[in-house]
Amino acid sequence: MEKAEFDVRYGEYRRAVEEYLDGLFTGNPAWADLYESMRYSLLAGGKRIRPVLTLEFSRLAGMPDWRRALPVACALELVHTYSLIHDDLPCMDDDGLRRGKPTNHRVYGETLAVLAGDALQPEAYRLILTAPGLTDNIRAACALILARASGADGMVGGQVLDTLHAPKTEAELTEVHRLKTGAMIAGACLLGVAAAGGEVPLRVAAEEYARQLGLAFQIRDDMLDVVGDESVFGKPIGSDAEEGKVTFVDLLGVDGCAAAVRACTERAKAAVAAYDGGGFLSALADSLAERDK
Amino acid sequence: MEKAEFDVRYGEYRRAVEEYLDGLFTGNPAWADLYESMRYSLLAGGKRIRPVLTLEFSRLAGMPDWRRALPVACALELVHTYSLIHDDLPCMDDDGLRRGKPTNHRVYGETLAVLAGDALQPEAYRLILTAPGLTDNIRAACALILARASGADGMVGGQVLDTLHAPKTEAELTEVHRLKTGAMIAGACLLGVAAAGGEVPLRVAAEEYARQLGLAFQIRDDMLDVVGDESVFGKPIGSDAEEGKVTFVDLLGVDGCAAAVRACTERAKAAVAAYDGGGFLSALADSLAERDK
Repeated sequence: MEKAEFDVRYGEYRRAVEEYLDGLFTGNPAWADLYESMRYSLLAGGKRIRPVLTLEFSRLAGMPDWRRALPVACALELVHTYSLIHDDLPCMDDDGLRRGKPTNHRVYGETLAVLAGDALQPEAYRLILTAPGLTDNIRAACALILARASGADGMVGGQVLDTLHAPKTEAELTEVHRLKTGAMIAGACLLGVAAAGGEVPLRVAAEEYARQLGLAFQIRDDMLDVVGDESVFGKPIGSDAEEGKVTFVDLLGVDGCAAAVRACTERAKAAVAAYDGGGFLSALADSLAERDK
Repeated sequence: MEKAEFDVRYGEYRRAVEEYLDGLFTGNPAWADLYESMRYSLLAGGKRIRPVLTLEFSRLAGMPDWRRALPVACALELVHTYSLIHDDLPCMDDDGLRRGKPTNHRVYGETLAVLAGDALQPEAYRLILTAPGLTDNIRAACALILARASGADGMVGGQVLDTLHAPKTEAELTEVHRLKTGAMIAGACLLGVAAAGGEVPLRVAAEEYARQLGLAFQIRDDMLDVVGDESVFGKPIGSDAEEGKVTFVDLLGVDGCAAAVRACTERAKAAVAAYDGGGFLSALADSLAERDK
């Protein structure tokens, strides 16, 4: 797929996601400060890679209109957003900046930041379970995919390893990221297939694509923390080293990381080659491998 | 229903709940410390009122074997447990004791306490969405009831009002508790009806019963914080006053509270009089009105 065509489709998906998210939590109840805090982080930008993956996989799995997968795609983005809010808390990574803006607790205080994260989880399930045009079978399948990706044996387990177990070896680091970021990227791909009622072969391909894409994404992230440009990257360069975290750069070097990103990216593309109508997923993998933020 | 008969059935429900919960998070992954922290709070006792309500309502709604509702009943208890862990955090109520034992963050530290709470939410949905013997329609209906009860316009909204808005009047206090505790008690009752595929009239009765029971429960709680016995109640007496919280005792006095508890209890019993086969729900309302802990 040509870059121009890729950019058009990515932009279309992304705008649809932004519009959908912007329609949430707009009322004015007595607890409107909770809504405001939730919306602050939900609408703080970001690349929206996960919902874009859901939408593209729903299209590939034969959904007549990918917009019908928006509630499901955005549900996972709500859960991703809660995890960022809680990760930034003083008792976690204690970060003051996220995507170039003050983190949620710096703006709204710790109490509301914890509660905004807490509320985003059930609201994600609400979106899936009331998604128009989906059967209860599909809604239940989607909600279960989200629960598994974000649960104790998924994202939260990975966060525990990352925050409390100080991974040191390449195997440990790979395991952390398989859970912490990989499970949710895989969840996003599987949600797209499930929303369209897609079949097993595409599910298997989606999982392998996600595994490789997720690993490439994380290694690139570690590289950008060393060689990136802070004004583009949106968070302080060198923060991993400052926190004493072992990263893929420590283990593989910058050049070794670049090679690993290329290898994972090629494996991701190979996993979906038979299904990637138009080549959007391949172009996405390439663009993430070369990203600066 | 005679007290002895009530005690037998309550004991049977409660034991089934304890056994079910004790079977969760028993593996030994690299993140077993997360499991331990989750189990610590999950198995810290408590009256298990919410799952007992789910089980009894499933029975009243015609479920052939109430044990089939256990995953659904315990799912709500997982969400209730996460809310207690997060409520006790230093940035919330900063409590050191819960049910006579050190709170989760005092034992495991703040980081793991936040993450244990975070993981309990998706695990609750996983239990519902993999519950044996239920159709996907019923699973989806149950998951949605849980999401609504615990979301931004339910439990978390109530917690925001309680923690950050300092309710002062009886109307404000009633609204806080309608959301903070009432939504989850109503959710427990509705889950039982939904798990059994129960019909609208019983749903309406369940909601009214829950509303009155929840209010009686909260007013009794406020009374016990003034006139209770710390060694029985399991938390320090006078903590509300110490935290500067306005309670129903401030607004109605101890005698006024006692009268309100009696009135709400009678309304709860009246709401289900036509359905309360055997009178278990009436006996439960009476026992909660007279409880010392």
